[in-house]
Amino acid sequence: MNQYELDTPCILVDYSKLLNNIYRYQQIADDAGVALRPHVKTHKTPQIAHLQVEAGAVGITVAKLGEAEVMADAGIRNIVIAYPIVGEAKLERLIRLAKRVELTVACDSYEVAAGISAAALNAGIVINMWIEIDPGYGRVGVQPGENLLRLAESLAPLQGIRVTGVLEFAGHSYDAETDEQRQEVAVREAKAAESAADVLRGCGFPVETVSGGSTPVSRFASMMEGVTEIRPGTYVFGDLTQVKAGALDIGQCALTVLATVISRPAPDRAVIDGGTKVFTMDGEDSVIGTGRGFVVGHPDITVSWFNEEHGVLTLPPSEQGLKVGDKLEIIPVHCCAVVNMLDELNIVQDGQVKDTWTIAARGKVK
Amino acid sequence: MNQYELDTPCILVDYSKLLNNIYRYQQIADDAGVALRPHVKTHKTPQIAHLQVEAGAVGITVAKLGEAEVMADAGIRNIVIAYPIVGEAKLERLIRLAKRVELTVACDSYEVAAGISAAALNAGIVINMWIEIDPGYGRVGVQPGENLLRLAESLAPLQGIRVTGVLEFAGHSYDAETDEQRQEVAVREAKAAESAADVLRGCGFPVETVSGGSTPVSRFASMMEGVTEIRPGTYVFGDLTQVKAGALDIGQCALTVLATVISRPAPDRAVIDGGTKVFTMDGEDSVIGTGRGFVVGHPDITVSWFNEEHGVLTLPPSEQGLKVGDKLEIIPVHCCAVVNMLDELNIVQDGQVKDTWTIAARGKVK
Repeated sequence: MNQYELDTPCILVDYSKLLNNIYRYQQIADDAGVALRPHVKTHKTPQIAHLQVEAGAVGITVAKLGEAEVMADAGIRNIVIAYPIVGEAKLERLIRLAKRVELTVACDSYEVAAGISAAALNAGIVINMWIEIDPGYGRVGVQPGENLLRLAESLAPLQGIRVTGVLEFAGHSYDAETDEQRQEVAVREAKAAESAADVLRGCGFPVETVSGGSTPVSRFASMMEGVTEIRPGTYVFGDLTQVKAGALDIGQCALTVLATVISRPAPDRAVIDGGTKVFTMDGEDSVIGTGRGFVVGHPDITVSWFNEEHGVLTLPPSEQGLKVGDKLEIIPVHCCAVVNMLDELNIVQDGQVKDTWTIAARGKVK
Repeated sequence: MNQYELDTPCILVDYSKLLNNIYRYQQIADDAGVALRPHVKTHKTPQIAHLQVEAGAVGITVAKLGEAEVMADAGIRNIVIAYPIVGEAKLERLIRLAKRVELTVACDSYEVAAGISAAALNAGIVINMWIEIDPGYGRVGVQPGENLLRLAESLAPLQGIRVTGVLEFAGHSYDAETDEQRQEVAVREAKAAESAADVLRGCGFPVETVSGGSTPVSRFASMMEGVTEIRPGTYVFGDLTQVKAGALDIGQCALTVLATVISRPAPDRAVIDGGTKVFTMDGEDSVIGTGRGFVVGHPDITVSWFNEEHGVLTLPPSEQGLKVGDKLEIIPVHCCAVVNMLDELNIVQDGQVKDTWTIAARGKVK
């Protein structure tokens, strides 16, 4: 079926571009001599996780336990949950999962570690744990230095856990405006992670993995001394945020939303059948000159604003021939957020739909 | 079960507040002598649609065909699709739906009307159509006046459709800052709709319904001369946008997100297990003094920012006793958007979970 015969709004994924992105970032990791552990929150789709592992990834990263369960069910064997697990219901699920895959969890506090320790001890197993440090982003993560040392000392007596790594996420790499600034962030976050690893080793923990790297800084993996692994996510598809962050070109973006013009209420205005329930309002800092999206083949159209089900396009005089029923492919601002809104990826090659993959880990917030 | 025993993040709906909101807006409509046709995009949940109809609503409004199908399956018999239906796949579904419920569709162009006309003729049925006019919001809708007259004349020869109403949505009522300004919008949109109805009647169409009104202006329904029906949606739950728009008080908000503190990385910072995948980034203009949410019982906490799975709270000195594992109830900026992110509503009375309702029309973007 031709992609334009699909009912809209829906997601298209260009298979060749997807593979190229997977291979390119695997090559970056290989060239830098570090492992690649992609964050699958971008695609939430087992088929793509398998493509990443087949290309050389050592395993995957997830945010939530529910994502890990879906990926484990689909046969992915090595999973890092880069998120603190809190509460009885989740600890029970964590234990069940740890019994069937090679699992590691992130942790940035004694409280989280103590909960996992008790659950693991009770189940008679040992769970691998990576300590999350804050490289300056200001989200989660223990502060390196004195705070980290105190945390490490408090963890030492806990049984049922094995501290084997350090993990950090430098979300502020998205604020960098030039490759030079991105390199600086990469070097700085690597230094923070490596020195945290030393602190933990000094406390007797067998720290082997130092894991870092978002999509924007992963290109500079070779400069991240001490880092043994990178965890980019968005590189598989790309979006306007990544284009702005210099991670790939607009032509390398593999994911688009196919939408239909449903109203032409004014000569310079067209309205499409996708709004925030497809595109979301994520990534407000990454809106580029064409607004909240980039219409493929129509770079002069502005994606001006969204309501839940409406997308309002502003048309220059050259684009006013657009008609009700016309279909447009639009690169979104933040692809991970878009993938979370719909149930399927339509896999496209040369404009033909070759497969439909269920976004099996969509909406797994628990 | 006590609501705090629920795994998080999840949605809580206070049953008493929900009922009060339903009754209060029904009373507003009754007092004004207009029909109430609630927009169910806010709750997407058949049980709540039935509560609205039982309280006196004449039927429901939906945005998308998929929402209409879910509601029809659940036994709702009178449905307006306030959205232009475009494309063969959707026209086929529209015909099937029109055969089993009392259905009306909105339309703002000859192209959309012609498609519906051809499909209806082919099926041997007649579909009710309301013409959507633009009362000055600048989204969809034909401009009143000359454009409307030309559209009406073009529709006259079409068979298979019956133009029985005028519909408008004054989204710009959300920009009003005082009740006086909201009243002005209400009066102005009513005038535009009533005069459009006259144009259509002059062309020979049996226009009976003049449908208008968002939640912020519905309180002024009695001033909307000529309007026969209002279509508020968000009033059932309320949220920070509606509080800002004067539609209800913070204490009347029926929907909250229950979230757990998963990290306390700094004395003035707590991180919860819900981010944009629960709260969304919708409603950026409606962020109030407490940021992107209001923490019930903790009015001095600021909901500062979200990533996909993280919500970062800023704590004043008086709130720094918050611990990992603590659960918080948070009123979101835009409740309709939140409902679209999760699968269930936990119905709560006096802090006890009395039922769990599936958000059956969640994610129906087609």
